[in-house]
Formats: sequence, C-alpha cells, structure tokens
Amino acid sequence: MTQNIYDDETFFQGYSQLPRSVHGLDGAPEWASLRRLLPAVRGKRVLDLGCGFGWFCRWAAGEGAASVLGVELSEKMLARARAETRDPAVSYLKADLERFRPEADAFDLAYSSLAFHYLRDLEGLIASVHAALSPGGALVCSVEHPIFTAPSSPNWRSDASGHETWPLDAYLDEGPRRTDWLADGVIKQHRTIGTYLGILLRAGFSLSHLEEWAPSPEQVAANPEWARERGRPPFLLIACRKPEAG
Amino acid sequence: MTQNIYDDETFFQGYSQLPRSVHGLDGAPEWASLRRLLPAVRGKRVLDLGCGFGWFCRWAAGEGAASVLGVELSEKMLARARAETRDPAVSYLKADLERFRPEADAFDLAYSSLAFHYLRDLEGLIASVHAALSPGGALVCSVEHPIFTAPSSPNWRSDASGHETWPLDAYLDEGPRRTDWLADGVIKQHRTIGTYLGILLRAGFSLSHLEEWAPSPEQVAANPEWARERGRPPFLLIACRKPEAG
Repeated sequence: MTQNIYDDETFFQGYSQLPRSVHGLDGAPEWASLRRLLPAVRGKRVLDLGCGFGWFCRWAAGEGAASVLGVELSEKMLARARAETRDPAVSYLKADLERFRPEADAFDLAYSSLAFHYLRDLEGLIASVHAALSPGGALVCSVEHPIFTAPSSPNWRSDASGHETWPLDAYLDEGPRRTDWLADGVIKQHRTIGTYLGILLRAGFSLSHLEEWAPSPEQVAANPEWARERGRPPFLLIACRKPEAG
Repeated sequence: MTQNIYDDETFFQGYSQLPRSVHGLDGAPEWASLRRLLPAVRGKRVLDLGCGFGWFCRWAAGEGAASVLGVELSEKMLARARAETRDPAVSYLKADLERFRPEADAFDLAYSSLAFHYLRDLEGLIASVHAALSPGGALVCSVEHPIFTAPSSPNWRSDASGHETWPLDAYLDEGPRRTDWLADGVIKQHRTIGTYLGILLRAGFSLSHLEEWAPSPEQVAANPEWARERGRPPFLLIACRKPEAG
C-alpha cells in the first residue's frame, strides 16, 4: 500500500501552503507545458489519478468534459476537493492507486500530476489504465524527474565561486528514496526514464511526447531564484496514446 | 560541417587503443544491450551511420545481411575499415552525416553507435533516414547520455569519505560541449533525452525501446572500477520503428 503522507498533519499543512495549493493550476510552473500536451477535453470522459485538491478535475469540467473522476488516497485532500467542487460532472473516489483498477473502456483521457513516483507497483496501474481507455485515448502525466529523485543526498552543492551543481549518483539503482520534504520520512520511488517508458510501451501505449521540464528562460527572468533548476530538470512530462487498433 | 576529430593524429592514436577499437563489438560493454534491440539482420539492407572501423558492418554481413553500407567521415577510420573487410556485401562511403542524404526506401535497418552527439544538425539526418527506410524498418542507435554530456565540468567529485558524485549542471542548456577526451578541443553536441525523442517522433518514428545504459551488476563484479558508472549512465540506447503504414 502506498504511503499516505498527504494525511500527515505536518506534511498537509506544508503542502497546503505551496503556490500550487493556494493558486491551483496556475500556481504550478509546469502547468502551461503539461496543458499543451493535452488533447481537447470537451465531451471526453476524464480520469485524474492522484487528483489532490481537485484543481485539474474542476478545470476539465470547465473545459466541457463529459465527466471527470478524481481518484485520491488522502482523506484531507479529498475533503477539500469535495468542498470546493460544485460542478456535477466531477466525482471523487478515495482509493490507493496501487490497487485502483478502473473499468475497461470507461475513459478517453487519463491524467496524473506528480503522483506516479509515490507508487511501488506502477506497472499494474498503467496496464489497467490502458485497458480503461478507449482506442485513441491519451495518457498525459508528470512525475518528478529521475535526475531529481536519484541522488542519495539530493541537495545542491556550491563551489568556491558559488556555482551550484546537482550531486548525481545512484541513478541506475531504482527503488525507494526517503526525503524530508515538508515532513520527515517521505518515501518516493526512483525509476529511470527508461523504466517509465518501458512500463508505458509494454502496456501498449505509443509515445507522443516527452519533455524534461525546467523553467523557461522567461520564467527564470521573472523568478531569478529558479535559475539553477535549469541545471537539472525537476519534472518529467509524458504524453502517450492508446493506438486506434491492434 | 561536423568536426573531423577522428582524423586528428593524437585522437586517432588514442581512440585506436580503446578496447572497442582493439577487440571490436565485444570490446564495447554496451554492445550486448544494443544487440538485443536489433531485429533479425538476415536478408536486410543495412545502413551504419558513423561506421568507424566497420566492426558492425562486418558483423551484420556475417549475420546474413543482404547489403551493408557504412558511412564515415574519417579517412583514417575508413582506410582501416576497408583494409579489414573482405565480405563483398559491405561497402563504405565517406560522407559528413550532416550532409549525407540516402535514397528513399533503400534500407531496412539503420544503425548508429555513438555518432549522433557529434552532429549539430541531427534533425535533417533523421528525417532523411526515416525516408530511406522501408515501412516497418528500424533505427537502432546509441549516443552519449545527456547526463554525461551536460556538465560544464564533467569530472567525478569525491567527498571526504571517497564517495563519488557527478556534478550535473546545464542540463537544459543544449549546444556544444568542448572536452579534452583523447585530444584537446573535442566538440560534442549536448541534447536532452526529450530533444532526441522529439526529433525521432517528429520524423515519423514510433519509439520501441529506450535504455539508459550503465554496466550491469554482473559487469561491475567483473570490473569493479566501473561501479561509479551506475551513478550516472554513460550511454543512451534507442530503438524505434517506421510504422508499416501512414
């Protein structure tokens, strides 16, 4: 079962104060890039895997989705998601993504933002998401970039001149990484890009796009403290498609 | 035009002494992995982009390829390739891969080992390779991994306890990297994985496999000095396919 760190009070309080929790999708600097990977949502049956506070669910409903199902493990997040959602096209389900198995052919678009790197068994979920999509359906997702999750000591190092580098090691050694982000003992699962793509391809998906996201030069100009993020991408964005036939 | 560093006498002498130059394919630790990505070669028309001493060309001919064309910029490498090749199925062509444009529908398999990261204009070559392949044809290639090519100072750093990390920076800043590998002033082109995949997908290829290669635990056991290579993969292996139709 997946660690339910979002229901840890310290973590939840910290997470609730992040720009993406206060301002929603526009508070997430990678959202504009992720949005470009999405097909038109109008009329689609949409699944959001790890929906958090439901920002994407409400956005998709606002774009005209036929239905939106948000799946989330955290009670605290779901409570806020439900309290902030009025649109009857949106529904929420409490479930552990490692065990969640949607019905076949029930969705046209699956979406997931920064959730898959918490799962130990991702292969089982992806296979069932593939089965749950209609032919031609899309999966668009983001995860923490493997370069970000790999290091045994994930902290920038500064040389005598102040130049910062990211101390990469253990990239090929996949498995749990314990960090103290927002709360002590947050467990993430490190996987290589090759492993993420292998899981998707073996499930039958065809890769449409892969982006190693870091702030654009324009975003860095507006937020100079983000400059070092271009040195090692924090997020990996992937779009793939279930082929029409075969 | 691509830098012709292989015809630099110092570089050529150094390169000629590497295990992969002395022992051929079996001297390259990634060969077994790359070979697993290849379709059956028998009866195929094979193109080797940056064929070096012709090891792969001779191997493919030995596997029963109908024909093998090796393309290479370096006169010194071609001279040795020609001197060591007896099989009439193999031919060689001196050309800069940035300008080489093969005929349409002339090959069933394109292969390239550690050559693409020297090219500034890779997109033009890949588009013409796609056109040169028969429907269902494959492109299998290796490049230096972007994690390997990115850093402004690509040298392992050791902490007080002797633990080594790879000082990653500048990952998103694509373009030339000057290194002093074997000779001074070798120019490689750094691209992200996202960029490599984008070039292939835009050309019309479908991704079959991507592997971030580092020595296996078994290879490390046999060569303990390779252990740190698992900290940051040196090579990226990619297999993709030209769809049968469309």
